Amino acid sequence: MRLRSSLLLTFALCAAVPAVRAGTVASIDSPGKVLRVELDLHEGRLGYRVRRFGEPVIDTSALGFMLRGSGKLERNLALAGQDTRSVDATWEQPWGERRFVRDRHNELRATFTETIAPGRSFDMVFRVFDDGIGFRYEIHASGGEAGASAAEWVIDDELTEFAVHQPADTAPPTAWWIPAGEWNRYEYLYQRTPLVEVTMAHTPLTLRTADGLHLAFHEAALVDYSGMWLRRVEGGRLRAQLAPASEGWKVKRRLPFHTPWRTVQIADTAAALYESSDLVLNLNEPNRLGDTGWFEPAKYVGIWWSLHLETETWASGPKHGATTANAKRYIDFAAANGFRGVLVEGWNPGWDGQWFGNGYDFDFTRATPDFDIQALSAYAGERGVHLVGHHETGCAASHYEAQMAEAFAMNARLGIDAVKTGYVCDAGGMERRLADGSIAREWHDGQWSSNHHLRVVEAAARQRIAINTHEPIKDTGLRRTWPNWVTREGARGMEYGAWGQPPNPPEHEANLFFTRMLSGPMDYTPGILSLQGRGQPIETTLAKQLALYVVLYSPLQMAADLPGHYAQHMDAFQFIRDVPADWAETRVLAGEVGDFVVVARRDRTGDDWYLGAVTDEHGRLLEVPLSFLEPGRRYLAQVYRDGTDAHWRDAPFSFQRESVEVGSADILPLRLAAGGGQAIRFVAREP
Amino acid sequence: MRLRSSLLLTFALCAAVPAVRAGTVASIDSPGKVLRVELDLHEGRLGYRVRRFGEPVIDTSALGFMLRGSGKLERNLALAGQDTRSVDATWEQPWGERRFVRDRHNELRATFTETIAPGRSFDMVFRVFDDGIGFRYEIHASGGEAGASAAEWVIDDELTEFAVHQPADTAPPTAWWIPAGEWNRYEYLYQRTPLVEVTMAHTPLTLRTADGLHLAFHEAALVDYSGMWLRRVEGGRLRAQLAPASEGWKVKRRLPFHTPWRTVQIADTAAALYESSDLVLNLNEPNRLGDTGWFEPAKYVGIWWSLHLETETWASGPKHGATTANAKRYIDFAAANGFRGVLVEGWNPGWDGQWFGNGYDFDFTRATPDFDIQALSAYAGERGVHLVGHHETGCAASHYEAQMAEAFAMNARLGIDAVKTGYVCDAGGMERRLADGSIAREWHDGQWSSNHHLRVVEAAARQRIAINTHEPIKDTGLRRTWPNWVTREGARGMEYGAWGQPPNPPEHEANLFFTRMLSGPMDYTPGILSLQGRGQPIETTLAKQLALYVVLYSPLQMAADLPGHYAQHMDAFQFIRDVPADWAETRVLAGEVGDFVVVARRDRTGDDWYLGAVTDEHGRLLEVPLSFLEPGRRYLAQVYRDGTDAHWRDAPFSFQRESVEVGSADILPLRLAAGGGQAIRFVAREP
Repeated sequence: MRLRSSLLLTFALCAAVPAVRAGTVASIDSPGKVLRVELDLHEGRLGYRVRRFGEPVIDTSALGFMLRGSGKLERNLALAGQDTRSVDATWEQPWGERRFVRDRHNELRATFTETIAPGRSFDMVFRVFDDGIGFRYEIHASGGEAGASAAEWVIDDELTEFAVHQPADTAPPTAWWIPAGEWNRYEYLYQRTPLVEVTMAHTPLTLRTADGLHLAFHEAALVDYSGMWLRRVEGGRLRAQLAPASEGWKVKRRLPFHTPWRTVQIADTAAALYESSDLVLNLNEPNRLGDTGWFEPAKYVGIWWSLHLETETWASGPKHGATTANAKRYIDFAAANGFRGVLVEGWNPGWDGQWFGNGYDFDFTRATPDFDIQALSAYAGERGVHLVGHHETGCAASHYEAQMAEAFAMNARLGIDAVKTGYVCDAGGMERRLADGSIAREWHDGQWSSNHHLRVVEAAARQRIAINTHEPIKDTGLRRTWPNWVTREGARGMEYGAWGQPPNPPEHEANLFFTRMLSGPMDYTPGILSLQGRGQPIETTLAKQLALYVVLYSPLQMAADLPGHYAQHMDAFQFIRDVPADWAETRVLAGEVGDFVVVARRDRTGDDWYLGAVTDEHGRLLEVPLSFLEPGRRYLAQVYRDGTDAHWRDAPFSFQRESVEVGSADILPLRLAAGGGQAIRFVAREP
Repeated sequence: MRLRSSLLLTFALCAAVPAVRAGTVASIDSPGKVLRVELDLHEGRLGYRVRRFGEPVIDTSALGFMLRGSGKLERNLALAGQDTRSVDATWEQPWGERRFVRDRHNELRATFTETIAPGRSFDMVFRVFDDGIGFRYEIHASGGEAGASAAEWVIDDELTEFAVHQPADTAPPTAWWIPAGEWNRYEYLYQRTPLVEVTMAHTPLTLRTADGLHLAFHEAALVDYSGMWLRRVEGGRLRAQLAPASEGWKVKRRLPFHTPWRTVQIADTAAALYESSDLVLNLNEPNRLGDTGWFEPAKYVGIWWSLHLETETWASGPKHGATTANAKRYIDFAAANGFRGVLVEGWNPGWDGQWFGNGYDFDFTRATPDFDIQALSAYAGERGVHLVGHHETGCAASHYEAQMAEAFAMNARLGIDAVKTGYVCDAGGMERRLADGSIAREWHDGQWSSNHHLRVVEAAARQRIAINTHEPIKDTGLRRTWPNWVTREGARGMEYGAWGQPPNPPEHEANLFFTRMLSGPMDYTPGILSLQGRGQPIETTLAKQLALYVVLYSPLQMAADLPGHYAQHMDAFQFIRDVPADWAETRVLAGEVGDFVVVARRDRTGDDWYLGAVTDEHGRLLEVPLSFLEPGRRYLAQVYRDGTDAHWRDAPFSFQRESVEVGSADILPLRLAAGGGQAIRFVAREP
């Protein structure tokens, strides 16, 4: 039982209404009176600000647009009406970090109209939770100008700001961020800098103030719109910078429409910040695909790591990885170890040339001659295994769209019910075939791409296929609405351990958890127990590789190393065999952004709990109350931990496995080596 | 059950021994192989360093002395021998934050001898715990020079250093500190600055590195030695600066002798840093007073706050507070509400002149004419109440020593078994009467004062009296050895809320908890429910005043407000009536230095748990697992919390009391207002 409901209920009943400030035309409190949003009109100029426990968190920040042809929409505004509503609902996820999600917020809808011509009007909708806010613009059908262009907006810029409050005499907030606008993807090392050194960042952008408040800026429900980057304009003031379309404008929409939700998660601790990510899901629309119970969260193996080690190739030839014989070995390995999926990259024609950003040779409807996809599908099916499809587009996105219906139909016939897509093109951009046959190049997170991905997801859904997007657009919680969009990449994954310069450092996953993972699942492809890339070591201990299965959620979770490598570490591999890929509950037990995290999750289909802990380049000595376990019940804790002298650099293989009987009143010491981690399975005894 | 023992046992069995570095002549690991101390000799110069999980925490730091007459003792040293031992013991405290204390450490004793004349020799003794280290110098009888002065050292400086490691490209550690050497006491607001802005600081000095490691520097068992200040000499390098004696040297000792322990507590979280304070107690000698069961931890009230409000006076006259009639009222109030003690300040002659730093008129053996101490003692005794004695010395310390035996004997006859002492003298210093009758002035934390306080404590112990020292020398854990030295001041207390300029700010107690409170109990005198000082407000909410009873441990704990004020807040006052003054267990559930803290403690004499949470000027929304409760048992949580619109500045009296049934599996939401807090009593149901 969480007491939140019973205790906080009182707040609502006894709440006094603080005085409204001068200039404030509307305001709304969160249900527990933690956050308050105030809307101001100063000389017709609209702004919002956020207070927490009465103290400023976001100072007055601009709202508005720069529109092509009709100029700025940010002044000469009047409040035309407002209303509020309260929601307290709980909904069930088909899969996710937790089965039940509570959506408890107060909503303010305020209508603004221009007091001069053309008299455009729109609503500002704010949803205020105790742990964050979301707001969006809803543009009325009458939002346009009179005449021919009335029905359309061409947005040159969205003027939304987030002015992070900074008290005098305190150090600036610390930011964890990756740069936006410089390259076409999200695969950077997270930087930790003072906020005042941020230039332009992707979201989620995570901050910690000098006073220990944690904030994350992101967006929810990015549909038919351009992704939002955050550009620092001065001090702690961030401004939305929309990814541009190839035509130069940022977004073009028919009226009426609404923008994605702009979100700010606000929490006292890093752990609570992660938990507040339910806000992003809550701001998305409910499932529109109907029953997607056909998607089964699962682990998979595949012909992949060998490609990054360059011992095998995607391309045809003597080292071609996707051969019938090789795939059979993986299917056998999967069947023997309980993995549902076998991914085979390089199974189809198109890999032999320069396909990077130029994937026009890819054929998604037939296999290479040395890969008998029919026979393999049957072979897999007899063993309870499913091939996982792979659609690398080389960013030839329109080329892919033209084939995808047929490709997904073929997949469905073969029992392939999950497909990994890929958009490798570095700086080139997504290929968009125009009506005249010419080609435009679009940003990975531009408006066109946002729609492309949904076309793929919907086409896949028609064949009951789940999508795992690599080099994707960022996650904005659309898995709620399209539950077959199950996971994606969207950050530096394990392959950077193979060849990255520099490789992923020990702090990488402790950064990811509190930044990238706020947006949703990631197909990080952990489990490289060989700890060896292409001439460079993986910068973790062995135990940390196991912990990643609990820390980094993905409903399609890979065991990424080679079968032969797992054979050399059967004691550790047992955890990978055991760990589920989906969860009924999640509790972040401890953590600091970029330093360490301890998370416990309960199996979606059983009573066992799993704990994962990872640290950065520093060892940690933590004590964790096991209060998440069912009271009165006993558990066998199967502990996979760093050896006493383990160290990511000096002794990464130092590893210990042991069992201990525990209950909910126990306090577990966690000793994480430098660059290390710990994984525990708590096997529930019969009650 | 804490699993530490069972799981960590394995470490000891399978530990590999890392290679010893060049120059390292001795080293020792902590029992769980978390910390390692290495001793170096470079060209005969001795240094130590500390690693944690293999990474540097304290870089090579100097050890040695500057001795009067014989110069530096820090070069030309050779290792003459070394041995190690392991300790894992548990001892029981007569009172304290927890009943049982575990002492688990490895000890290294290394003997060094000068290779040139005069050939002095000493041992370096390091005790290495998993959460900190202590080390001291043990000077041999042969440590002195040949000849007349062989038997004595006059120490001009101790050269001990603590070189805080700072990785390249990281921000400097943050320090929470008060200045040393500028004034004679510890009553400053804690500053939060980069370590590189520390000048000279008192201990405990608390640091947090950019990577989230928490450190605290202090000393243990300060006996017949001068208190250690920490002077920053360059970068992150701190050097011991001993408080000087009036003669100009710092310490004068006969040989053999040993220094106090120099301590470094090291933990990953602020919560663990507080818990690591057991290290200071563990480094003190066991109880040497025998059974001190006659001391009963208890709450007290008294004639005190009215003096700070200036509605009554210490001095005689029409507003004299310490009158028989007034004291009777307090005794009645104490008896009616279950308080054991009644403190009466101003009960004795000596207050009428300028007594600040000039307390020669104080008489500790008789009361003023309007205070019938005999009758009041009897009146109290009939009601189960004890008067609490008060010995303000005005720093006339020798003057006090001359009377104290008689004074304590009188106290004992009157049932007065606890005495609050005071040393108010600001910059003047402690009066020390020399043999020739002349007077010297000594620092509060100089060698002479360290001995004065122990003479007082021992004289009191002979009469079975407990001592509560105000304007004291700092706490270094001597309560273990002298268990009647039960509490003290030694920081800015509640009276600064009455008249301090500036007053104690909202962050004050969140600073104290992770700095001053690392050293031991503090008589902070909380519970000012009127929230009003002398023309200035107390900068907390009402609920926070209650929380302080759990957060700030003192086995003599005052309910400091006026009885009439409590009558106006009977709902809140109930918590002060209920809360015990001593604990069986303590768990720090959450916290950040200077920001907030949540602590749970179990009654030493019962099954009830109490929770206290305080925050700084920022409101907090926290979730606290109640896993400290006994599994399977039900508790009635009596919650005293901030009202929904509470704010220390705008609405400090907004307050809510409610009850809810809970168990160990529940997660409690804590909503702390800006400058607020929360207090909870968990009343155990019958099992």
